[in-house]
Amino acid sequence: MTYDLLDRIDSPDDLRRLDRRELPALADQLRAFVLESVSRTGGHLSSNLGTVELTLALHYVFDTPGDRIVWDVGHQTYPHKILTGRRAAMASLRQAGGISGFPRRSESQYDAFGTAHSSTSISAALGMAVAARNAGLARRHIAVIGDGAMSAGMAFEALNNAGVTPDIDLLVILNDNDMSISPPVGALNRYLARLMSGRFYAAARNVGKAVLSHVPPVLELARRLEEHAKGMVTPATMFEELGFNYVGPIDGHDLDSLIPTLQNLRKLDGPRFLHVVTRKGQGYKLAEADPVLYHGPGRFDPAIGIRQPATPPRKTFTQVFGEWLCDAAAADPRLVGITPAMREGSGLVEFEQRFPDRYFDVGIAEQHAVTFAAGLACEGQKPVVAIYSTFLQRAYDQLIHDVALQNLDVTFALDRAGLVGADGATHAGNYDIAFLRCIPNMVVAAPSDEAECRLLLTTCYRHPGPASVRYPRGAGRGAAPAAGLDTVPLGKGVLRRRAARPASAVAVLAFGTLAVPALKAAEALDATLADMRFVKPIDRDLILELARSHAALVTVEEGAVMGGAGSAVCEVLNEAGMTVPVLQLGLPDRFIDHGDQAALLAGLGLDAGGIERAIRARFADLWAAAPLSGTHS
Amino acid sequence: MTYDLLDRIDSPDDLRRLDRRELPALADQLRAFVLESVSRTGGHLSSNLGTVELTLALHYVFDTPGDRIVWDVGHQTYPHKILTGRRAAMASLRQAGGISGFPRRSESQYDAFGTAHSSTSISAALGMAVAARNAGLARRHIAVIGDGAMSAGMAFEALNNAGVTPDIDLLVILNDNDMSISPPVGALNRYLARLMSGRFYAAARNVGKAVLSHVPPVLELARRLEEHAKGMVTPATMFEELGFNYVGPIDGHDLDSLIPTLQNLRKLDGPRFLHVVTRKGQGYKLAEADPVLYHGPGRFDPAIGIRQPATPPRKTFTQVFGEWLCDAAAADPRLVGITPAMREGSGLVEFEQRFPDRYFDVGIAEQHAVTFAAGLACEGQKPVVAIYSTFLQRAYDQLIHDVALQNLDVTFALDRAGLVGADGATHAGNYDIAFLRCIPNMVVAAPSDEAECRLLLTTCYRHPGPASVRYPRGAGRGAAPAAGLDTVPLGKGVLRRRAARPASAVAVLAFGTLAVPALKAAEALDATLADMRFVKPIDRDLILELARSHAALVTVEEGAVMGGAGSAVCEVLNEAGMTVPVLQLGLPDRFIDHGDQAALLAGLGLDAGGIERAIRARFADLWAAAPLSGTHS
Repeated sequence: MTYDLLDRIDSPDDLRRLDRRELPALADQLRAFVLESVSRTGGHLSSNLGTVELTLALHYVFDTPGDRIVWDVGHQTYPHKILTGRRAAMASLRQAGGISGFPRRSESQYDAFGTAHSSTSISAALGMAVAARNAGLARRHIAVIGDGAMSAGMAFEALNNAGVTPDIDLLVILNDNDMSISPPVGALNRYLARLMSGRFYAAARNVGKAVLSHVPPVLELARRLEEHAKGMVTPATMFEELGFNYVGPIDGHDLDSLIPTLQNLRKLDGPRFLHVVTRKGQGYKLAEADPVLYHGPGRFDPAIGIRQPATPPRKTFTQVFGEWLCDAAAADPRLVGITPAMREGSGLVEFEQRFPDRYFDVGIAEQHAVTFAAGLACEGQKPVVAIYSTFLQRAYDQLIHDVALQNLDVTFALDRAGLVGADGATHAGNYDIAFLRCIPNMVVAAPSDEAECRLLLTTCYRHPGPASVRYPRGAGRGAAPAAGLDTVPLGKGVLRRRAARPASAVAVLAFGTLAVPALKAAEALDATLADMRFVKPIDRDLILELARSHAALVTVEEGAVMGGAGSAVCEVLNEAGMTVPVLQLGLPDRFIDHGDQAALLAGLGLDAGGIERAIRARFADLWAAAPLSGTHS
Repeated sequence: MTYDLLDRIDSPDDLRRLDRRELPALADQLRAFVLESVSRTGGHLSSNLGTVELTLALHYVFDTPGDRIVWDVGHQTYPHKILTGRRAAMASLRQAGGISGFPRRSESQYDAFGTAHSSTSISAALGMAVAARNAGLARRHIAVIGDGAMSAGMAFEALNNAGVTPDIDLLVILNDNDMSISPPVGALNRYLARLMSGRFYAAARNVGKAVLSHVPPVLELARRLEEHAKGMVTPATMFEELGFNYVGPIDGHDLDSLIPTLQNLRKLDGPRFLHVVTRKGQGYKLAEADPVLYHGPGRFDPAIGIRQPATPPRKTFTQVFGEWLCDAAAADPRLVGITPAMREGSGLVEFEQRFPDRYFDVGIAEQHAVTFAAGLACEGQKPVVAIYSTFLQRAYDQLIHDVALQNLDVTFALDRAGLVGADGATHAGNYDIAFLRCIPNMVVAAPSDEAECRLLLTTCYRHPGPASVRYPRGAGRGAAPAAGLDTVPLGKGVLRRRAARPASAVAVLAFGTLAVPALKAAEALDATLADMRFVKPIDRDLILELARSHAALVTVEEGAVMGGAGSAVCEVLNEAGMTVPVLQLGLPDRFIDHGDQAALLAGLGLDAGGIERAIRARFADLWAAAPLSGTHS
């Protein structure tokens, strides 16, 4: 593939100078470039192959960056990035110092709004549209949202508000591509599929006309039915009920449909809704056949496709959870598993296969997921909500008001706690310790490795109240979980190492997987190390005993220091009236960009060497007084 | 009014023994009792007068408590409480030790699910329905939800999920009463009003039949149109699109409509949707005329109605905010005010009147409200989101992901921070300090009185980034705000009192309105008192200076100690390597019931006497060494 046309596009202005007849060829080149680029860097593929034509058409018809495009979720913006001056930068995609896998306002003036979590685009675009109205600007605003994202309540709230907001220029484009993947999980998806089938518009109306046109006295009725079909009495679609001018569905890979339709919609006022049908993975047969596999691949050879590695990689925490869930479900018929549209990401594929009646994918609907779980728990079921830490932020009120306040028996399996690597700050699970531990009745567990993860999952599941287990993205130190369903004492930590001379040593209190590098540091420093296991209830006795017997305490966690587990330790000390030097290690008070997880942690001083250095620096006096390092030299 | 029928009802079983012809008279008695009871205790009135017949009909037709009724929001459950054995307890409504103003599982077996925040009922009832299905129980599940609550995204998420969940027994009852109050704020409300007008069902279908029945060859078409009207091709309503069997609208005050309709719906399977139209305040002319005034009154004489008190009460923080908002809007055309359906509660009535183009009531849609604000802020507007602390929990992810991460200039005015009194634990704003201060870029301010509130609102508004000002329900110490729009230095506290002998005294660091009792305690103890003003950025210099110069620090806040402002102080000390005794005073780690605000705080030791006692107890040694109390004796 040569990129002769693409080579000429450094900005949408260049694109708009092309003849419309050149666009199909440009689309081919753009698609080929996306495939080539993602196969080299890894990243999202299927969704980007699906938005090639739509992206071209939008930038061709609208006057970007003056007109605002808000891309919902935003992982489908690679064609947009390529067309808006970031083609070369695609080589650094999602890598430290490189461009983001999502739109970012700080990255380009063409990125009108930063996205990543789903279903925010209509709200943001409506805000921009109102701002333009207030300022008297004739700017256009486009929200591009997928059918999955449309099923989230937030999108409905925005439609509900936009439909009655006067004098705004807002175009919502529904990028409907669910049909080809998994079965639709919600009533809205089923409804969209019916719209796509086009039967009502095509069949019913034509039937009416054909028959009625031969019966003069009924022509008046036909006219009125036609009116009703357009207006308030027989609304054509749910989106028209909500005040939008609905057009569609049209083929989102056909530039000859897309461009004239967008040109027409550009001229209209008020809230418009365009229903576009695309195919994930379009144009790359392997991705078309398995869009889920090609959703977010690592590097691969496009000519061969994704190959399973010869040696299986280390088991991830997600897999440890998935196996535990199946084992726990086999042992307890009351267990139900709930996911807000993250079956693969949360490790529920096998659970769904083995326990289909107890598996609930509720769609992108975190709020509903949690209160649905509360309802189940009221009636003696034992729901396990599998959710990323960052997405639990969407259901915070439901966790407090519906689960914790009623002290209901719901277990939260929080994946992607801490830094997440390539997805960056939008997906980081850095705040859950702070926002969960302040809630009465909550249990917050933080396993230090895979074996601990299984133990703590069973322990939290058996606890007859709300409980959460937070574990990071990827693999841990590789500790194979035991086969059974053993538990550990709730709210109790364990000592992993004792200092030889505690009175002149520090005790490191580790929460979660940083216990592994912390143990290395403790060995180098002859420090005591406790794997605390629980942030809440916290092991008060252990803390006080270590505080009494050691010269100082160090807390380590992969979470925000502000309000985190270290502060929980200080609260215990203050409540007990103890005054002990404490060093709190964890994530700093800033958003942390994408990059390699281990490298990011090392850069923050949260690897073994960094932890050791921080302890030596903070307690330099202690080291001068009693050179503990001598015990290991 | 005699209560001869009501006197016979101690449970729904008694109700179900009545002849149907006795029910209208019982409804009259029930309504009279609600009015009499609420006029004596205060509480919610309009909504409860509106649900008298619906409540009677539900308990008459369904087999409660075996069948589950989930009341959305739940402040309309007084008739339900009266019919389910809590008639005498109504005298203690919302008072310390008395029954709650909301359903509570711990209060009655008839309260299937605790509610208070809006729009949770369908999710919870669906969870219960799935649990019944899994257990093979023929139980029925009813969610009763208002039209306002229906506009929240969470309700849509639940409908979307319920509509495709097989083999469940779920009846959603839409209690539609908005028509008579304020103009509808969303497209859904407008749509419901159209459904209520009944034109489609009544008119279009009858027209079709009337004309077509005289034209034999078109009968086939008529049949098909009829089929389409029922089935997938011309769905009658949005709720049918989502998989529900829709019935309605019917008159929710007409027992002769309600009971047969409910009896019919009781026999059907799957997700059913009944649209009931009621009137807030029904049967009490004063409340019918002004349902907003009678939404949640204090005590009043039913014969006279609510009278304005002769001497106006002290200005509330809500009023201070409302006045500030108008003044700030007059001074800055970029200001826009946003409320998620809390115009009155948040003090925006005057703002709406004076600045209608810059006032946005987005409906019960906290998630959308915050991201809508983010969109406005992207385009140079300066949004102020007026929201209760407890409801911001609904938009936590949007605050993090859409506002803070992009460092957008959105100001959050957090009303009802801390304990809220009669509404109880569901509405308490106890966690915002913990859940906000862990988020990078956020400013968190906590004014100590009304004058400070205005200063901090202006300061946070001028700050070009995300900022929040938290203030409690009701009035403060009565400090009149200055007229202008003055600011204070961001992140700096002020000393209100200096101890005579700091080296042997404590320094009290107060965050928010507890600074007032804390100052009294400080005077009694000859302690230093700092009004910290900001939780974040916190005044590091002041903390360290006070730590160096005093024997100990005491932190005071009306918020959860866990992760709260006191822990922020400890983080500063730890980061600076200082080891100082700290006493953290604030809200304990449990949910706190309804009751009088001041009495609740005193019960928790957070009045002046309690603070003084806690300090003396914790630092008894200090007092023994240097009897500071002598300086005031």
